[in-house]
Amino acid sequence: MKSFAIGVDLGGTNLRISAVDGEGNLLEKVTTGTHVSKGRDFVIDEMCEAIRTLSGKFQKSAQLVGVGIGVPGIIDKRTGMIRESPNLAGWHNYPVKEEIERRLGAPVILENDANAAALGENWLGAARGMDDMCMITLGTGVGGGVVLRNQIWHGMTGMAGEFGHMTVDPNGPQCGCGNTGCVEQYASAKAVLRMAREAVASGKPTEIVQLSQGPDVEFNAKAIFNLALEGDQAAKAIFHQVGWALGILMADLVNAFNLHMYVIGGGVSNAWEAFAPALFDEARKRSMVYAATAPPSEAEPKGAAAKITAGPAPKLKQTIITRALLGSDAGLYGAARLPLLSTETKVHGMGQTA
Amino acid sequence: MKSFAIGVDLGGTNLRISAVDGEGNLLEKVTTGTHVSKGRDFVIDEMCEAIRTLSGKFQKSAQLVGVGIGVPGIIDKRTGMIRESPNLAGWHNYPVKEEIERRLGAPVILENDANAAALGENWLGAARGMDDMCMITLGTGVGGGVVLRNQIWHGMTGMAGEFGHMTVDPNGPQCGCGNTGCVEQYASAKAVLRMAREAVASGKPTEIVQLSQGPDVEFNAKAIFNLALEGDQAAKAIFHQVGWALGILMADLVNAFNLHMYVIGGGVSNAWEAFAPALFDEARKRSMVYAATAPPSEAEPKGAAAKITAGPAPKLKQTIITRALLGSDAGLYGAARLPLLSTETKVHGMGQTA
Repeated sequence: MKSFAIGVDLGGTNLRISAVDGEGNLLEKVTTGTHVSKGRDFVIDEMCEAIRTLSGKFQKSAQLVGVGIGVPGIIDKRTGMIRESPNLAGWHNYPVKEEIERRLGAPVILENDANAAALGENWLGAARGMDDMCMITLGTGVGGGVVLRNQIWHGMTGMAGEFGHMTVDPNGPQCGCGNTGCVEQYASAKAVLRMAREAVASGKPTEIVQLSQGPDVEFNAKAIFNLALEGDQAAKAIFHQVGWALGILMADLVNAFNLHMYVIGGGVSNAWEAFAPALFDEARKRSMVYAATAPPSEAEPKGAAAKITAGPAPKLKQTIITRALLGSDAGLYGAARLPLLSTETKVHGMGQTA
Repeated sequence: MKSFAIGVDLGGTNLRISAVDGEGNLLEKVTTGTHVSKGRDFVIDEMCEAIRTLSGKFQKSAQLVGVGIGVPGIIDKRTGMIRESPNLAGWHNYPVKEEIERRLGAPVILENDANAAALGENWLGAARGMDDMCMITLGTGVGGGVVLRNQIWHGMTGMAGEFGHMTVDPNGPQCGCGNTGCVEQYASAKAVLRMAREAVASGKPTEIVQLSQGPDVEFNAKAIFNLALEGDQAAKAIFHQVGWALGILMADLVNAFNLHMYVIGGGVSNAWEAFAPALFDEARKRSMVYAATAPPSEAEPKGAAAKITAGPAPKLKQTIITRALLGSDAGLYGAARLPLLSTETKVHGMGQTA
């Protein structure tokens, strides 16, 4: 009998649930709003009901190995609780894993959403076939995940991969984390908007002025990216700054980890063509290791349009910095991968360490 | 029959060779000058002769499992060659491992010296009993090594742990590596001397002026540290800068790896009391992860004077930044550990991956 897993992406806005088989085929995907305001118990009831319905469809022909749930926040792997999550107030000190396992009668694995996305890209996305990789997710904030030997590297307290708060410029803008000049202050959607406001305030001639006078909903990173594509100098300078900061981060990560692949995902990564040139310039200049192992051409990788299948990628000894392939599904695939990986691990007796 | 290994530290100045048993007891240590100027073959002959003599003493009562050699440079683990070593000209493209194995009839493992030092501190030093740690070595330059699950993490091309060239300040001093504002430009012995010269040139009243007019041999990082201890403001400011840079590095490493322990060794680490306060200040300010997991007091660890024995250390979920314990022997112990670890690995069937 074939096996399948349920992957859940428990976002602040959407609750997305997928059924994925052991080969990485998406069997089905459902999306509902997360009614976070109705409280924890309501959300868990709804989630468990949706999981039951979805898995019921496939349990005749395949065996459910478990449920993986990606959560925006800090997970305590030992207790199966959510230690900190700004979007999920009231979930703290509640046995999330145990409670869902009790209701579903299946093993549940909780994971930080950025880690789940990294695992997804490692399994089926840009870094498929690579043993070691990390992923940087450029969203409202900047998150990250590290995958070593095809397993998420959690670190001592599950906080490894906090790339968004690594220092780019010690004298840079103040960050909410207490540091100044974090990556997040340059490469997040929030940072793009801050820099856009600064450009308007500076009085430089830029189309951003018109944008900032329009409806709030249109003053976003995507609109500023569009201005950059149209040649607006101030908008171009903003994404140059994004690339500059990411290049410094990449150089640091290459020098520290020396991995095969660094994947950049999240909403802001859609502005790739606007920030990538500065990124590669800085990375080459600031890391001998990168300069010595970079591919001859760092142009838009052909892989971006490649068919998404699980299979070995070529293993040249090159350091590849590239765009994510799975978009917002990376976390869904990664979450489903967790119970599948756990089962494989048990079968092969390698011992899970996290 | 007990087993033992030979550890070699092939420095640019000294050739040091040790016999170490499986429990980490130093059986004997010999030091000779490295006559690098007499050429590769001379050095290898001398090294093999010394290894033969030393191991002969113990082979009646114990079994030699192999020889580990720490080398200042980049090792190609696959070919057993030294890819780059400024101090060992003419060793490039020469089958070092194969040649020494042929002469000694024992397995030989080459390793980068900073990696060997990290493994030594992990086995018997400050990080004994820890699964995961990294070490920063502050010498003429700044090196580093990462140990994950008690094995050196080499990365894709053996370049992981290049902490000396991670960026502290993107607008900082030019480094020979091509980057500006590397850790090495603030926290190496060379950087201390550069900052001392800058202090003299600035015309500020400082005892460094007298020092700089004396014999060259006395104008070194240790003498400037002594001035800092005596209260010289300019000398104190230099080590404050060292600590500032190391604190930014530590915050970055904690955010990226989230390890139990970060060990600081090498000659400049003897100035610990002059740079540690600034280091801890910056690390707390710049890493939420560190601030959340730092021990209540970061004062000089009692461990610094502790007896050196292999044994489990307490495993509190704290992030410890501390001084190395083994001094210049770390690399010797680590080198000896390599063949011992390789044997253990084979016995337990875990598979070595590097």
